[in-house]
Amino acid sequence: MTSTPVDLSHHLSVEARLRKPNAMKQIWRLARRKPNMISLANGDPHSSLYPIQSMTFSVASVAEKDPVATWRAGGSSAPTHSITSSRDEAPVLPVRTAFQYTTGAGLLDTQEAVTELTRFYHNPPDHIATLTLGNGDGVTKCFRLLGSPGDHFLADEFTFSALANAAVPHGIKWVSVRIDEGGLIPEELEKIMENWPEERGPKPHVLYTVPCGQNPTGSTLTVERRKKIYELARRYDLLIVEDDPYYYLQYVSKASSEEAASVPTGSESSLSPRGLAPSFLSLDVDGRVLRVDSFSKVFAPGMRLGFITSSPFFHAHLVALTDSSTQHPHAFGQLFLTELLGPAGWTLAGFDAWVRSLRDEYQRRRDLFLNIFEREVAPLGLVRASVPEAGMFVWTQINVERHPRFRREGGGAEGPCTNCRQLMEELFEVCLDNGLVVMPAWVFALPTDPKYDGPENSIEDRMHYFRLTFAGTEEAMESGLKVFGQSLKEFFADKPKAVEN
Amino acid sequence: MTSTPVDLSHHLSVEARLRKPNAMKQIWRLARRKPNMISLANGDPHSSLYPIQSMTFSVASVAEKDPVATWRAGGSSAPTHSITSSRDEAPVLPVRTAFQYTTGAGLLDTQEAVTELTRFYHNPPDHIATLTLGNGDGVTKCFRLLGSPGDHFLADEFTFSALANAAVPHGIKWVSVRIDEGGLIPEELEKIMENWPEERGPKPHVLYTVPCGQNPTGSTLTVERRKKIYELARRYDLLIVEDDPYYYLQYVSKASSEEAASVPTGSESSLSPRGLAPSFLSLDVDGRVLRVDSFSKVFAPGMRLGFITSSPFFHAHLVALTDSSTQHPHAFGQLFLTELLGPAGWTLAGFDAWVRSLRDEYQRRRDLFLNIFEREVAPLGLVRASVPEAGMFVWTQINVERHPRFRREGGGAEGPCTNCRQLMEELFEVCLDNGLVVMPAWVFALPTDPKYDGPENSIEDRMHYFRLTFAGTEEAMESGLKVFGQSLKEFFADKPKAVEN
Repeated sequence: MTSTPVDLSHHLSVEARLRKPNAMKQIWRLARRKPNMISLANGDPHSSLYPIQSMTFSVASVAEKDPVATWRAGGSSAPTHSITSSRDEAPVLPVRTAFQYTTGAGLLDTQEAVTELTRFYHNPPDHIATLTLGNGDGVTKCFRLLGSPGDHFLADEFTFSALANAAVPHGIKWVSVRIDEGGLIPEELEKIMENWPEERGPKPHVLYTVPCGQNPTGSTLTVERRKKIYELARRYDLLIVEDDPYYYLQYVSKASSEEAASVPTGSESSLSPRGLAPSFLSLDVDGRVLRVDSFSKVFAPGMRLGFITSSPFFHAHLVALTDSSTQHPHAFGQLFLTELLGPAGWTLAGFDAWVRSLRDEYQRRRDLFLNIFEREVAPLGLVRASVPEAGMFVWTQINVERHPRFRREGGGAEGPCTNCRQLMEELFEVCLDNGLVVMPAWVFALPTDPKYDGPENSIEDRMHYFRLTFAGTEEAMESGLKVFGQSLKEFFADKPKAVEN
Repeated sequence: MTSTPVDLSHHLSVEARLRKPNAMKQIWRLARRKPNMISLANGDPHSSLYPIQSMTFSVASVAEKDPVATWRAGGSSAPTHSITSSRDEAPVLPVRTAFQYTTGAGLLDTQEAVTELTRFYHNPPDHIATLTLGNGDGVTKCFRLLGSPGDHFLADEFTFSALANAAVPHGIKWVSVRIDEGGLIPEELEKIMENWPEERGPKPHVLYTVPCGQNPTGSTLTVERRKKIYELARRYDLLIVEDDPYYYLQYVSKASSEEAASVPTGSESSLSPRGLAPSFLSLDVDGRVLRVDSFSKVFAPGMRLGFITSSPFFHAHLVALTDSSTQHPHAFGQLFLTELLGPAGWTLAGFDAWVRSLRDEYQRRRDLFLNIFEREVAPLGLVRASVPEAGMFVWTQINVERHPRFRREGGGAEGPCTNCRQLMEELFEVCLDNGLVVMPAWVFALPTDPKYDGPENSIEDRMHYFRLTFAGTEEAMESGLKVFGQSLKEFFADKPKAVEN
């Protein structure tokens, strides 16, 4: 594959095309003609008026062998590392620089920090970082950049609802792609694109996907599937919005850790040199991938700072969109991240140590969860749990057909063929009544269209899943799975419940 | 005026109507039926895994009489006040609470802090705060909430371009309202609404305005104009998006300070009890005002945290919009702001002391600017400066008619009647060549429509303004205004420039 520049400008949304250039930026471009220009132009508060003298962050030390385990075990007396930036001085980003207005791309030092991070893990050809206000902001900006009213976007048939919903107000229609335990099925994607009926409207031109530890199913795409999907994207001129918050939480199977250890850097391994699956970004020679990164899962949700890595073309449009909507991200997070990844902070090596250790922590939690599940739930024979290779979720499949009141309804042209959904709503209620909250499949289901998907493929007949998580405490897993087992037993026994007094 | 609830739901945009309810939220509502629910539902990292032990902010002390002057004079040895929040403990917001996922409204403690602030300064009837990611985010969210493709919005004929541009990709068309030195002219607004030609499309239903220290003209609406405009908004069913970043920088004239001192709280003064002009929010009995507040000008631009105050109805829609786009604001800023305004920080009284002192600082700068202007520029008789009563900007009006090459072109049906714009572009170039950047009027001009505004009212004939600022250093004002004077002299002399070697 050679890196030929591909013109992808036809993917821009109506909105992106309507966006006017920023006239003030043009003024500043003109003003570059001389050095030392005097400015009476911009209403920017002078840094001597910022009421902040310094900020200090006391963060976890990453000097230990297993920093996350040490951090958890140590509680408030765990070893820490201190990062300080003062108004006029800092290892990299002083307050007075961080707290100015910048362009939508973010602060230069922060862009460089995340670019180095991306180079380390993905080493993509010719791509540029645009900072975002977190994952939701990053994904919805991609939607707004690419989606016009009436457009079709593709996604896994079960998709994180808050983000799927975010596309709807722009008039974007979702086309769901069938999945299995390995995530999106390339052949199903191909079938949709190959057989797209003209009368259905414009052919889908964007695929939104979470390749690692997909939310809600926990599935992770194999290297082979990733390559097939990328090739399909080239064949059918699809852009890929790669939303990858769980990238660092890819669990080590024995096989893959041996492979990673035995393969020298840069060779044709199925895994990247870091022992992590190659992202779509790393495969992207055309500039058709917009990768959305987040720190919410590896640091904390309140970070609200992430970044999009894209071709320079989409980068320019993302910056224009940011300038005329949210504006650039907050100085606090940019300063924190830049110093954390910088020479006086963790450095990139320290970050890598943290995320590897965090991965181990979540892998322990996953294994604990699955052990409890094996003990408390599996023996009932009523439900099966996926074994996620990444992320935080276990997708449990209920044997709904074993329920006494399960029935096939013959499959009307409009509706579902079974009463699956109704039974699952009852099971969900039983769990709630027993004091347990789980996430039912219908929360995540993209609607199918009987006209095009066929009534026999109604998503309503595939609602027999619940998303469970091992992100919580061990106590929650222990007691929660017990209640889950009891609830299943109760529900499948199907005895009328005694009225409570 | 009585506070009758007015149904304003017809103002919602197509986009807002298309927005789907968040299914996960519905699950959580159902889950409230019992206390102590066990959750296996959400993929939220546990706070013991946040790598942050504590954060400490060293901020300016507000114990002094004139805290901003003390802060500037003291440099790095100025008295400070320390604010610390640790993972598990803090005066108000510990790290572990601040860094969780929250709803789009923001953290409850932060909402309360800004609500108290709004009560203190505006005391509005039945309004609620929604946190934003800063002013740009706040204003564009209002545009998205209210503007459908083809809609008309009203604004001052000269308006901050980055925000005017933000409405364009949504298909919103601007209708410019004539202004004078006192800002938007209510009679001009009335004329537009009264004579709106049906064939022009849907009647404007939103007025976007910056009531204090308007950007770029520096004008501030009098209390009388505010009341008139609000009455017109009621009569013509307009919503008002009140964008007020310079609210705290309202300068004290002798008359108004005497008035404020002599009038007891709550009486029918033309100024509010705080000596500040009453905001549209404070006048809003119908819930037709969405007020956008910012901390960029009183703290620092990099804060990227602000809030919208609106009726509960628009609040609910703003939260839904935030949930399905940017998500909630960053924890860093919410924690900082909450602790700063809280009992262990500045408190609200300290904030008030800071902004009053900051106002005095900018008033000194303004007066210095005007003094230099009087000395270096005014004697030429070629330009007049406005005296802003708020904000950071001086709108200077060039006597373009005095230029030797100025001409009236007879007024074609399509174009401008003079060569004003062309001459101003030349003057701008002369300034640049002399090493000075100023902001020309055309950067801010909303286009007029000769068909409806009449060719004799073309904005192209009113381009003889430059926006100057006194936000910069004293040196920039001193040397910049000298260059401005020289450039004017050179330009009006209109001698061919010697070719540089």
